[in-house]
Amino acid sequence: MPGLRALTLPAVIWVLLAVPVSAGGEDPAPPAPSHISESLLREALSTLECHRLLAELCRTAPHRLSGSKGYDDAVQWAQKSMAQAGLTNIRLEPVMVPHWERGAVEVLELLGKGGDATPLPVLALGGSVATPTGGVVAEVLEVKSIEELKQREAEVKGRIVFFNRAMDPTLLSPGAAYGGAVQQRTRGPAEAAKLGAVAAVVRSMTQSLDDIPHTGVTIFPENGPRIPAVAVSTRGAERIAAMLKDGPAVRLKLELACRWHEDRPSANVVGEIVGSEKPEEIIVVGAHLDAWDVGQGAHDDGAGCCQAIEAARLIRKLGLRPKRTVRVVLFANEENGLRGGRAYALAHARELSRHVMAIESDAGGFTPRGFGSNANPAALAILQEIAEPLSSIGADRVSRGGGGADISPMGASGVVLVGFKPDTQRYFDLHHTALDTIDAVNPRELCLGAACIATLAYGVASRDEILPRNPVKSD
Amino acid sequence: MPGLRALTLPAVIWVLLAVPVSAGGEDPAPPAPSHISESLLREALSTLECHRLLAELCRTAPHRLSGSKGYDDAVQWAQKSMAQAGLTNIRLEPVMVPHWERGAVEVLELLGKGGDATPLPVLALGGSVATPTGGVVAEVLEVKSIEELKQREAEVKGRIVFFNRAMDPTLLSPGAAYGGAVQQRTRGPAEAAKLGAVAAVVRSMTQSLDDIPHTGVTIFPENGPRIPAVAVSTRGAERIAAMLKDGPAVRLKLELACRWHEDRPSANVVGEIVGSEKPEEIIVVGAHLDAWDVGQGAHDDGAGCCQAIEAARLIRKLGLRPKRTVRVVLFANEENGLRGGRAYALAHARELSRHVMAIESDAGGFTPRGFGSNANPAALAILQEIAEPLSSIGADRVSRGGGGADISPMGASGVVLVGFKPDTQRYFDLHHTALDTIDAVNPRELCLGAACIATLAYGVASRDEILPRNPVKSD
Repeated sequence: MPGLRALTLPAVIWVLLAVPVSAGGEDPAPPAPSHISESLLREALSTLECHRLLAELCRTAPHRLSGSKGYDDAVQWAQKSMAQAGLTNIRLEPVMVPHWERGAVEVLELLGKGGDATPLPVLALGGSVATPTGGVVAEVLEVKSIEELKQREAEVKGRIVFFNRAMDPTLLSPGAAYGGAVQQRTRGPAEAAKLGAVAAVVRSMTQSLDDIPHTGVTIFPENGPRIPAVAVSTRGAERIAAMLKDGPAVRLKLELACRWHEDRPSANVVGEIVGSEKPEEIIVVGAHLDAWDVGQGAHDDGAGCCQAIEAARLIRKLGLRPKRTVRVVLFANEENGLRGGRAYALAHARELSRHVMAIESDAGGFTPRGFGSNANPAALAILQEIAEPLSSIGADRVSRGGGGADISPMGASGVVLVGFKPDTQRYFDLHHTALDTIDAVNPRELCLGAACIATLAYGVASRDEILPRNPVKSD
Repeated sequence: MPGLRALTLPAVIWVLLAVPVSAGGEDPAPPAPSHISESLLREALSTLECHRLLAELCRTAPHRLSGSKGYDDAVQWAQKSMAQAGLTNIRLEPVMVPHWERGAVEVLELLGKGGDATPLPVLALGGSVATPTGGVVAEVLEVKSIEELKQREAEVKGRIVFFNRAMDPTLLSPGAAYGGAVQQRTRGPAEAAKLGAVAAVVRSMTQSLDDIPHTGVTIFPENGPRIPAVAVSTRGAERIAAMLKDGPAVRLKLELACRWHEDRPSANVVGEIVGSEKPEEIIVVGAHLDAWDVGQGAHDDGAGCCQAIEAARLIRKLGLRPKRTVRVVLFANEENGLRGGRAYALAHARELSRHVMAIESDAGGFTPRGFGSNANPAALAILQEIAEPLSSIGADRVSRGGGGADISPMGASGVVLVGFKPDTQRYFDLHHTALDTIDAVNPRELCLGAACIATLAYGVASRDEILPRNPVKSD
């Protein structure tokens, strides 16, 4: 199969024309309005098509980090899947993306006083540079925050900084616990580099105590120094901390072979159900197509991609005809750059005033609980009304606050942003790890989520009145 | 370790006296009333004690069907765990239970026209009799319901009846789908036996299509004929059905070595937090301690047992002093007889008028969604008010309808019955199978459930006014 660079847009369109647009023949009579949500939910469960799609994506392109061959494969899968779902105007929208590779070597060893070396489970952080061949050996400085790092500035030079802040296990929202600790991963290594550290080791972002390292992005400013940086499993972190308690001079050896390449041309993948009455008014249903290069990105965010496509398929399958356009957008490069989300907002700047709502699923394919939104009070009340029938599965809560990384660049233009909210108690057991595979996704939970998204998207797309927009923010 | 029969009550009490009743030393100052639910939830997450307990039960007594050595081991574990949780008045309440054993042989083979034999995944149903040594071979009669069986009465004699009704995958509530199909397992074999069938094969009760057989009880009336009966995996069922489509004369060979023994003395396990002001008014927090003899009974119902004990521990740990008695009851023999639930109601008949509420957790240790109750409208409104703070984790819904098998015998006396409701989309993937193990339980989800139960139990136990009782039903 040709790589993305070999596919010109006309060639893509030609491929798509070979696929019948109306998959499944004649459109059925749509259900009565009061039964639409129930019909969407039952249709989603009847074939579990969303799960079949996800299994296919996980097989076809398990590793699909920006710039990789896997991402190109995922793009091809997305186009084919959108066509099979009966979407039209399927197209690639160009995005230049960063291209980082993990490399074959990633080893962290805890060096004992007696010369012994204990390997600890690690994954390089996305954005890390390599060590010299043979690795670096240095004493460890343990800190729990960037603030503590700065207070101990004098001790940093020549050391490996060990960021060992745990996600608070007692917070009811795992997302809040993640938010309270993730800065040490995203910004910690760059801050350590500025102060002369030779490498950074970060405790994995999970509330579990286990041997699974969690990768994720770390950001080095354009002109600042860069150092090798890894995530160590939480048990590995506990071992380092325990040895530090025994005596101060603990040494680690780190070897990484990551590489940065030139930016590469890539694409968001877009497809539509064109609105029957107001096709220029747009509801975006989005997710991100890229994923980390471990596991299969099944929950993050293969689930969201398949739910977006499946939501559109469900609407068509039921013979529903939204007045406004439902546009499925699978974004490039959420994990290490957000270039896809930014490119979409830029390329569509002139039509953002006619973007009514953007909904994103990027919190895993778990059992649906509801939605979160930045909507103004009038719009929020309407969303709550549309979601009310989802009380049949306890997924009708539309709470204040929420959205998604990829759709966030549209927010300043007054687009109402909505985040689909599945249950997230299990999410950080597998987020950004080798465990994020299709086996960890329950078919019914995943498919119910697609129907929830379809309910909200169709509800907003089919109202007589447009959903009240948020105030536009000037720069 | 001595079997249950070797443990006299005084011996048990002696063991318990050796364990300090107030585990953890001085009682802390309790949280403000508005923070009780939040404190219970966070305390549950801080140590994940409920999950540690469940892992211990799954290790100690993975197979604990009524009458087995495993059940006796579970009783010992329960007494020790209650003592560690700081409960008092820990005791065994006697119950005579049925004693059925699976035996070493359970084989179902699909016999091809060419003399080949394909083994299909099966588990004997609890209550089945054995086949003769060497098994039985007979032609298959496929039916989808007991009604169809009766209509085809003339075809039954000498056949193996194959009940192949699928759980409806499109029902939003898996429990409702189970309810719509389970009769073929509980009553189908007895009906087939009455009509002269030589054995019964039942499609497993699950919405998944896989190779995992699901056991469960089948009931033969006291004086009716009994036949060997198994559950076949859903894929196995599909294979039989496919061969029947190819041609009518399909033969199966079934061999089972199940055995019935005499009834055995067993026990419910009971422990209390004695009420500070109205100790005679009782809130039961229950679950069933027995489990099927495959997997570990982790979700069904180890989870419920550990949540009941943990709920009491949490109340004590926070220094809360309920006005009424919170009584943890772990029932014997829910799976194949309900003798524990019946014995409790009988033994406590005179104090049931002072049983305020009974809550049971027997739907798995999944993420909490709320409760269901048979409460009268006034009591339901109070329960909804008590549960309201659980909106912090989306578990505040108290819906009409619900309870639990073990507590159901108390209902006629006006006791308000409550069923804890976790999310159940995953439940029938593993219910009564080898997959129901500790690995399938998420620690956070399990522990949050314990705190939900503690919130409701403590809320009812600590109100000034008693919860309004339901009308008493006369026999």
